[in-house]
Order: sequence, then structure tokens, then C-alpha cells
Amino acid sequence: MLELPFRPFCLLLAGLGVLCVALVSAWCQTWRGGFALDGSARTFNWHPVLMVTGMLVLYGAAALVYRLPPAWRGPKLPWKVLHGALALAAFTLAVLGLAAVFHFHNVHGTPNMYSLHSWLGLVTILLFSCQWLAGFSSFLLPWAPAWLRALYKPVHVFFGSIILMLSVASCLSGINEKLFFSLKNGTTEYKNLPPEAVFANSLGLLLLLFGVLVLGALARPSWKRPDADSPASCQ
Amino acid sequence: MLELPFRPFCLLLAGLGVLCVALVSAWCQTWRGGFALDGSARTFNWHPVLMVTGMLVLYGAAALVYRLPPAWRGPKLPWKVLHGALALAAFTLAVLGLAAVFHFHNVHGTPNMYSLHSWLGLVTILLFSCQWLAGFSSFLLPWAPAWLRALYKPVHVFFGSIILMLSVASCLSGINEKLFFSLKNGTTEYKNLPPEAVFANSLGLLLLLFGVLVLGALARPSWKRPDADSPASCQ
Repeated sequence: MLELPFRPFCLLLAGLGVLCVALVSAWCQTWRGGFALDGSARTFNWHPVLMVTGMLVLYGAAALVYRLPPAWRGPKLPWKVLHGALALAAFTLAVLGLAAVFHFHNVHGTPNMYSLHSWLGLVTILLFSCQWLAGFSSFLLPWAPAWLRALYKPVHVFFGSIILMLSVASCLSGINEKLFFSLKNGTTEYKNLPPEAVFANSLGLLLLLFGVLVLGALARPSWKRPDADSPASCQ
Repeated sequence: MLELPFRPFCLLLAGLGVLCVALVSAWCQTWRGGFALDGSARTFNWHPVLMVTGMLVLYGAAALVYRLPPAWRGPKLPWKVLHGALALAAFTLAVLGLAAVFHFHNVHGTPNMYSLHSWLGLVTILLFSCQWLAGFSSFLLPWAPAWLRALYKPVHVFFGSIILMLSVASCLSGINEKLFFSLKNGTTEYKNLPPEAVFANSLGLLLLLFGVLVLGALARPSWKRPDADSPASCQ
């Protein structure tokens, strides 16, 4: 495989992550009225921003911690703590993002959890909470036996990528749904592709690109810890 | 990792694939008026059925060809041909699925390719066509040099999983979009979760389960061809 240095790629990815957060905020600020905590549509706007920041950008950063070359040397514990802390921060933002949409729905008498987007998002968050708890219990608490860690590690790694994939799918279905809700009158109809629709559709593809690049970095053999598959790395 | 026999898993997956096709057909037949070629909504109904059958079930079957134990022995060429043929069948159904929705839109004067779902679907199909052509040129035609095959193989494998992930995301955003379009009056509003909404949401989660199981089977080291990573397997 062509050799690609990790650090410039990582910087590019960090820039793309910041751009994703900036663009989703700009969408809500420019076309959807900005942000507030009053239960109005401006409260809803926290939902996409917190979900993209937490479930995509911070989650992606957490997933890539062990690909940083400094993490390959010395004790593993500080990197485990960083991985767990970033994942916990991602989870916290996701819960706040859920609270924003539930508050908005409750104020407007709209039922919660009816669309496929919401079911998909719930599956993602539930899987993520199981993943975090199982990871914390197995790899950070001292009492899990080595055989259990070795058994669980590939499962944790596999579901790490699956949850990221589910996050991307949730974000994309959510943007699609929001545009159908918001753009339905006269010249701003979604099907006429007004500037907001082009902006938000492009944002969706950018989120997808971010997710694919993180998955690509995770899959690249030469960027894994040299001892990643040895039994010692599970202990 | 726990040892899990491939054949029963494969049978379960085949059953799940057939169930997905049956359920998406049942949705269109029971709640959306069935199938026709007259440009009406019954023409549109071919779109979800052909996309699920092609881009998910047949595509998944194509991806798993090299995991079949008989494919590990003897010459590789027949399995390459089967892999390429199944992928081509999947692609053909996807193109017919696109034709169905374009025909429906054109008859009704609805613009094509405006929603994020359609952009995502187009990215998926374009990537798939590049993947098929590059795979055919590199692995089935005799003139690609061994170094090029070895270089391209991990890229082909990675994008194989990415395209499946994109297919799942496209199917889910499409079901979500269709339900918002179709369920908007009185007691059948989507937000009241009528039986059709529960059925189609559950179908979405079943498609997701199928995709995750295929990705899991692809990722499992013990189900890979024993020589999958050796240079000889690329020749």
C-alpha cells in the first residue's frame, strides 16, 4: 500500500472536523434562526450541532487516539484514559443533543421517537453506551481477566467502526428530514434546491467524507500500534 | 475470539436477506398500492424493492463469496467470476431502481436529485461503478501487473465495506423520506406511528442488521481465505 504519513492526514482530518462543526452551526445560525434554550425551533438547533460535534467529530478523535505514534510507546494507561474521556465527552454532548430535541418536541406537543431517523439515532446511542460501559469495565477497571479482554477487544474495535457508521447514517437521515420539514413553501421548496438545501446537502456529504476518512485511518494496517494484535496489548 | 461456524451464519444471513426483500415488497404492496410500469406511484414502488435487492442483498452476497470455504481451495478464477457477476447483477438492479424513480419524477414534473438521500444514493452508485470497473480491470482482465493488483486490493476491500455502509445509509434515509411524503394526513400521520410506520421503521432496522452482519462476517479474521493477505492471492 502507498505510504502516507499519519500526522499530516490527522491535521487534515482535524481541520475537516472543525469545518463540519462550523458549517452545521452556520446552517442553523444563517437559515434556521440561531440558538436559544426557550423550547422554540432555536432550541432544536442545538440538536444537529451537538450531535455532529459529539457523535462524529469527538467520537472520531476518540477512535483515532491509538493511531497517534506517541501512543505506541511507554505505558498504555494514559492513552486509554484519553480514549475513554473523549468518548465520554462525545456521549455527554449526544445526551445534551437528545435533550434539546426532546425539549423542543415536548413544548410543541410533538411525539418523540417516531421517525426512522429517531429509531436509528436511539440504536446508535444505546450501542454507544453499551460500548463505553463494556470498554470501561474491561480495559480501565483492573479486575477484568486477560482472557476476557482478549476476547472482547476485537468486538470493541468492530463496534467502534459500526457506531461511527451509524452516527453518519443518523446525521444524514436527520439533515434530510429537517430539510423536508423546513423547506416546503413556495420558492424555498426543497425540490427547487434553494441555497440552504445545497448548503445542507453539501454539509451531509462532508460529514460522510469525515466518517469515511476516520474509518480509512482505522483500517490502515501501517497506522495500527505495532503490537495491536498481540495478546500483550490486551493486558 | 469465539469460534462461530460460517455455514449456519451464512444460511441465517441468506434467510435475513430474503426476508428483507419480502418485507420491502410487502410494504409497497400492502400500503403503497403495489407495482406497475405506468409512471404512477406504483412505478416508484419498484425503487425501494430493486435498491434493497440489488444494493444490499445481492451486494452482500457478492461481498461474501470469498468467505465460502469451497472458495479457499483450487483455482480462484471461478470465484472471481462469481463475485464480479453478482456485483454486476446488483449494479443492474440498482440502475433499474434509479430508472423507476426518474420515470416517476419525470411523469409528475418533480425535479430529480434534489434531496440529500438522492445525493447520497448517487455517490453510492458512482463509487460502486468505479469499484466494479477497477476490480474488473485489475483482477479479471489478465494484463494488470501483480504490483498493481497488490496495491489496489486493500483499497478494493476497504471500499467494498464503505459502499455497503453507504447503501444501508441510503436505504434508511430513503425509507424515512418516503414515510414523511406518504404519511401526512389525519390519523395516518407519521408522528402518530400508524401500522405502516412501525412496519417500515422496523424494516429499516432489519436492513441495518443485515448490513452489520455482512460487515461483521467480512471483518472476522478466521473467515478470511487463509492466504488472503499473501502476495500470491493477488496474482
